[in-house]
Amino acid sequence: MLPRVERIERNLMYRGAILEIYRDTMRLPDGRSEYFDFVKHKGAAAVVPVLEDGRILMVRQYRNAIDDYTLEIPAGAKNSIDEETLDCAHRELEEETGYRAEKDDMSFLIGMYTTVALCNEKIDIYLAKNLKKTRQHLDDDEFIDVSAYTVEELTDKIRKGEIVDGKTIAGLMSARAMGFI
Amino acid sequence: MLPRVERIERNLMYRGAILEIYRDTMRLPDGRSEYFDFVKHKGAAAVVPVLEDGRILMVRQYRNAIDDYTLEIPAGAKNSIDEETLDCAHRELEEETGYRAEKDDMSFLIGMYTTVALCNEKIDIYLAKNLKKTRQHLDDDEFIDVSAYTVEELTDKIRKGEIVDGKTIAGLMSARAMGFI
Repeated sequence: MLPRVERIERNLMYRGAILEIYRDTMRLPDGRSEYFDFVKHKGAAAVVPVLEDGRILMVRQYRNAIDDYTLEIPAGAKNSIDEETLDCAHRELEEETGYRAEKDDMSFLIGMYTTVALCNEKIDIYLAKNLKKTRQHLDDDEFIDVSAYTVEELTDKIRKGEIVDGKTIAGLMSARAMGFI
Repeated sequence: MLPRVERIERNLMYRGAILEIYRDTMRLPDGRSEYFDFVKHKGAAAVVPVLEDGRILMVRQYRNAIDDYTLEIPAGAKNSIDEETLDCAHRELEEETGYRAEKDDMSFLIGMYTTVALCNEKIDIYLAKNLKKTRQHLDDDEFIDVSAYTVEELTDKIRKGEIVDGKTIAGLMSARAMGFI
């Protein structure tokens, strides 16, 4: 086993709207101590929704944290720490895109930590097929445009920097590299 | 242009070891206001280092935020907000792996925001070739094992959940889906 810096204390410093921010006190091998940031998140789920013709449904929205619009796969935070990510992915797909998939038509693709150095946010990403059109149910603070692109168009947008969201790049490129889309 | 929730105030609530945590006050279309979390980060860079035989150099380390060991591509935060990500990637590659690439042998692969809903951390990921063995220069708080894997092995590890780091999945799977590795 690799040696490691050991955590000797974790203190809650700030409770945000959805995050909790902690200061971890770590002991270095020489006995000195150092602070690490730790951001606690309840986790999330995302979906790569594949239409009959092979195109992928994408959502476009304004993102306050980067002061810009992004093109992303549909995703959302879990309602609670105990919610199953399949349930979360199933709900967010229909809410954000107005398309529904039965849970049997959703398969687990990858799980990823967004920011392993700082935060415990894990996003499970599912592949969804046999989509049926229903309607969007957006939250009060959500404004989302839905559109569909071919896998080639999306790969090109990632390459050109027109898609910059980590979970979206990881989900789409994994699905493509693994031969699922 | 899509309508959007508008930011009317941003207040620093906590300054961590490397993060700044803000509370953003957002105005909804109906006039009510809501708080959003914003985590400020100076940005980072990562490298997909490709050996002569096509295998990829990977680093293994303990990650406090998820209480587990991870297998990742080499990466690190920028020294300052003004540092060029190529310089950062070039430095982190040699520090963490003990292999050096000339900057001419490093090409930009993708840029990604790790957590677009909350944080402005952007990671630029480079592809590095013509690696030369030098030696690791780890920080006091870093313990890192270096090893090399084929692209097939890494794809399999992502599929099985043995690689869970977002930037690593995005970088490797983009490089594979785009035909660079």
